Amino acid sequence: MLGPKVWSSVRRGLSRALSRTMGSWASGEGRKMDISGIYPPVTTPFTATAEVDYGKLEENLHKLGTFPFRGFVVQGSNGEFPFLTSSERLEVVSRVRQAMPKDKLLLAGSGCESTQATVEMTVSMAQVGADAVMVVTPCYYRGRMSSAALIHHYTKVADLSPIPVVLYSVPANTGLDLPVDAVVTLSQHPNIVGIKDSGGDVTRIGLIVHKTRRQDFQVLAGSAGFLLASYAVGAVGGVCALANVLGAQVCQLERLCLTGQWEDAQKLQHRLIEPNTAKVLFENTPVWDCFVPPQQILTSKRSPIGSQT
Amino acid sequence: MLGPKVWSSVRRGLSRALSRTMGSWASGEGRKMDISGIYPPVTTPFTATAEVDYGKLEENLHKLGTFPFRGFVVQGSNGEFPFLTSSERLEVVSRVRQAMPKDKLLLAGSGCESTQATVEMTVSMAQVGADAVMVVTPCYYRGRMSSAALIHHYTKVADLSPIPVVLYSVPANTGLDLPVDAVVTLSQHPNIVGIKDSGGDVTRIGLIVHKTRRQDFQVLAGSAGFLLASYAVGAVGGVCALANVLGAQVCQLERLCLTGQWEDAQKLQHRLIEPNTAKVLFENTPVWDCFVPPQQILTSKRSPIGSQT
Amino acid sequence: MLGPKVWSSVRRGLSRALSRTMGSWASGEGRKMDISGIYPPVTTPFTATAEVDYGKLEENLHKLGTFPFRGFVVQGSNGEFPFLTSSERLEVVSRVRQAMPKDKLLLAGSGCESTQATVEMTVSMAQVGADAVMVVTPCYYRGRMSSAALIHHYTKVADLSPIPVVLYSVPANTGLDLPVDAVVTLSQHPNIVGIKDSGGDVTRIGLIVHKTRRQDFQVLAGSAGFLLASYAVGAVGGVCALANVLGAQVCQLERLCLTGQWEDAQKLQHRLIEPNTAKVLFENTPVWDCFVPPQQILTSKRSPIGSQT
Amino acid sequence: MLGPKVWSSVRRGLSRALSRTMGSWASGEGRKMDISGIYPPVTTPFTATAEVDYGKLEENLHKLGTFPFRGFVVQGSNGEFPFLTSSERLEVVSRVRQAMPKDKLLLAGSGCESTQATVEMTVSMAQVGADAVMVVTPCYYRGRMSSAALIHHYTKVADLSPIPVVLYSVPANTGLDLPVDAVVTLSQHPNIVGIKDSGGDVTRIGLIVHKTRRQDFQVLAGSAGFLLASYAVGAVGGVCALANVLGAQVCQLERLCLTGQWEDAQKLQHRLIEPNTAKVLFENTPVWDCFVPPQQILTSKRSPIGSQT
Repeated sequence: MLGPKVWSSVRRGLSRALSRTMGSWASGEGRKMDISGIYPPVTTPFTATAEVDYGKLEENLHKLGTFPFRGFVVQGSNGEFPFLTSSERLEVVSRVRQAMPKDKLLLAGSGCESTQATVEMTVSMAQVGADAVMVVTPCYYRGRMSSAALIHHYTKVADLSPIPVVLYSVPANTGLDLPVDAVVTLSQHPNIVGIKDSGGDVTRIGLIVHKTRRQDFQVLAGSAGFLLASYAVGAVGGVCALANVLGAQVCQLERLCLTGQWEDAQKLQHRLIEPNTAKVLFENTPVWDCFVPPQQILTSKRSPIGSQT
Repeated sequence: MLGPKVWSSVRRGLSRALSRTMGSWASGEGRKMDISGIYPPVTTPFTATAEVDYGKLEENLHKLGTFPFRGFVVQGSNGEFPFLTSSERLEVVSRVRQAMPKDKLLLAGSGCESTQATVEMTVSMAQVGADAVMVVTPCYYRGRMSSAALIHHYTKVADLSPIPVVLYSVPANTGLDLPVDAVVTLSQHPNIVGIKDSGGDVTRIGLIVHKTRRQDFQVLAGSAGFLLASYAVGAVGGVCALANVLGAQVCQLERLCLTGQWEDAQKLQHRLIEPNTAKVLFENTPVWDCFVPPQQILTSKRSPIGSQT
Repeated sequence: MLGPKVWSSVRRGLSRALSRTMGSWASGEGRKMDISGIYPPVTTPFTATAEVDYGKLEENLHKLGTFPFRGFVVQGSNGEFPFLTSSERLEVVSRVRQAMPKDKLLLAGSGCESTQATVEMTVSMAQVGADAVMVVTPCYYRGRMSSAALIHHYTKVADLSPIPVVLYSVPANTGLDLPVDAVVTLSQHPNIVGIKDSGGDVTRIGLIVHKTRRQDFQVLAGSAGFLLASYAVGAVGGVCALANVLGAQVCQLERLCLTGQWEDAQKLQHRLIEPNTAKVLFENTPVWDCFVPPQQILTSKRSPIGSQT
Repeated sequence: MLGPKVWSSVRRGLSRALSRTMGSWASGEGRKMDISGIYPPVTTPFTATAEVDYGKLEENLHKLGTFPFRGFVVQGSNGEFPFLTSSERLEVVSRVRQAMPKDKLLLAGSGCESTQATVEMTVSMAQVGADAVMVVTPCYYRGRMSSAALIHHYTKVADLSPIPVVLYSVPANTGLDLPVDAVVTLSQHPNIVGIKDSGGDVTRIGLIVHKTRRQDFQVLAGSAGFLLASYAVGAVGGVCALANVLGAQVCQLERLCLTGQWEDAQKLQHRLIEPNTAKVLFENTPVWDCFVPPQQILTSKRSPIGSQT
């Protein structure tokens, strides 16, 4: 069996190095940025007075830096991005960039309701050091978010983004699933490199992998709960809240999947899927996972439920 | 039959004058602000370059000012608030305050995802001239928005708001209905004066009216589509997108309901509910209504579908 | 104010008499059967050994016969029709026909999943004495129940039914709302006289009334919870579980609506909508209402929850 | 690589033989019936006059008999059981029993809305030759189908069934998912041997496998669309409509999973998940699959859409 360092380096190889030096997708040559691997969605700690606790954030990053993650997702749903101002969102990403190991990827959530704001946030995220942006579907006017509207939105963002774009579909929060036909169309954009799919519908994930097989398009599972199954149908990684507290185990699950040790993978997946185990483990930690959407962390003092938990 | 001016003045009477001079709910005496009547949800016009078109906004206000509305809702769903920056939201309200007749009410949408941001926006809305705020339910983490969380959120906002608060439940956009038990609890807060209910469930509206009957709590229907029915079960007005283009007719429907002319009211309601009629009327207008949620206006160049309509 | 008997007789008038003697819609002349008024959905009592308790059924009918109902709905959702065999469904209707007053209407539920079975049950219901059938939407294959499929189904049933057909849309149980366009198309069929709409969406009810106004098509509200509102937008009656225990009050609400006493109607509607009141009243009765779908009675020993209540 | 016959025999082994001779679960010794493997859900052919076409049924069975299926599911959703009378349901099962190879399992759908009818149908299914029954959740009163109600229902059925019971959860049709806690409780019943889960939520499937790991409880995937993923998390087979037309391929996918050839399995899964491929293949066949619920076959002349397809 390969050790964690070995399989990790094998996995990324040359393509990663290339993509980092490429500077921009505009060059158009070669492959899309390789985003395969496991990412914890970094949470945003708050002080007692509801300010962002940057000291605690850096402390968390140092702990997370000890695991063989591919990188970090910052300002995703678990980062409670809807509770931060635009400048706080950027500041958090900037701090993470400084605190995290140089060889990891930083995927920053830059989705807003309007196309214009999303473009602006995307450009700013690149400026503060994000390697790629993860763009959640706009959702307040979900009744109007047809495939055509969503394709229009993401195409505009990807056209103007200096860094690669990862689509982000999280129906438990947004009430809409980015339609498969829209994903397939968008996968042809040279600056759209993949999707984080948090819906948990593995038939859909398999179909996306299959229908985008000629586009160098990568699927990340949005939860540890269906990580093994996603690997089985062709996903290349996962953004798993559970990785915030069980980083070693989630990375081990990745390794078992990548090296074809499916029997052991199944056993580990079962242990990770068990809410009680997680509950015990999480009790004395500042973060916790929720395997079944739409539970998120919401430790923030700014949350409507902040003072109750 | 009473003319529009007469019934309008009868309806409001002294209580309105009192509430305006009261300054703040903190005085605690007397009744809650009377918000009964019809309100168009003012749309936000944009220029070709996707800037807010303040000239056009004032022009629209002058047109709308000719109808016997009780006031205006600004920065509601039809105002496309999710597409504006915080300062634009405030600037729009400020401009409407200046352009609108002095004797009308200005209800400003101040809802944000976090409690803290909502409080800040609420205070700012009061500073730029809003008479009351209309606060939409936070929704991104809808799976966590229990009755307790929502009661906590609205109580905090109402505690700190210098002007009255109107709850705003619009499940077509938010994916959650502010639960009846939460509404009943919140109706007891001296600074929470009513709810705009856009869900269209008239059993629920009747139940809310009944269960809050001792709280001087007022229900506004969220669409012209169920305005008559809402009056029939005790609502006192409506925020109707249709009033942007058929202002006279929606106000006439209000008058027919208030004066007990239910047969004529039914005929008018039927005409207003007919999508084809509305379509014809709306074709050459800059705005249109959608009777069945979750359709909103979205004329904005900033909208994901902006350039397609 | 008119007494109950007077308004009742005025309401029905000659058309009713005509429709009863007409024998069949096939004659094609004149108006559709008048089905306006209040109906309790008769429940099916069971013995301790889970047999249909016909003695108890007749007893209930005699009690219900003392109220000024327009008639009775038998084998609707509250009649627990899914728990009976075909022959029991017919036997229950036959017994009700014999036990009920001659001048009341008997609407019998005859819906089955297949078109063929529905036609057979419809013909049999006519043979055992039903005045009209109420046909619930097939629902097991709801994903395939397009407007076209439902129009096809109901047209076939109405073509072959010797008695008038009432459409029945109850989304809380079936998971589908008979689409408005399908209702409008079906309203043109000479043997389809109306719809029982239990969804509670009063905008939809108003739209159906408006769009079928030239078809002599009648809408019955499916619950006492939105009875007043339904009358306000043009419904002509209701099938109300609450009428099983508060028959006098529900009929009084009808009368207040029909005679334009909307203020008193609102007060009464509020009292009838209050779950606690109903709970107290229902506690010592064999039946109860549920204002909010999808609660049904399910007293049956055959129900999956039979022994637990 | 093991050939189809070899792995098939290895898989079943002695336990199968034992379970068949055991006669009844009442003996209580030993393991539950082994139901692992692939099953096509047999469709019900109809004549032009909407009668069950038993000749065609036998013909289909002979074709299906050539594939290495574990057995056949009869009177499931694809068998259009809601369109048949009770006696037809039994006659179909009886005919399949006679026409099918002796060494295959016959799982017969016996679910009805009432507990009583389900018990009767279950006993009858055993009498006409079913090896086990597959019992769909009652669903018309889904608002009342709590975990407690469903546990009560299935326990009663399993107590009285002379043959093993397989739970059947198909939310696309029934609007309810048999809750995991109910499944776990029911897995402890000696006569409940497994579940056919058609919801496609692989996190849930993994959790069920994990939480029932001490109960000898078996999970069958309800569609070919998530067959590979289900095997990956511990399912032991599938009931796949696609197996009606691509029997060899679905069985090959099973084999690849069982022998750990996950890379080839993924490729085959992708091909089977592709609707276009399937469409072409299905065009000239009497049956077709639907990968995404809630599409079913509905070729029946009795279906509301029968004459339209």
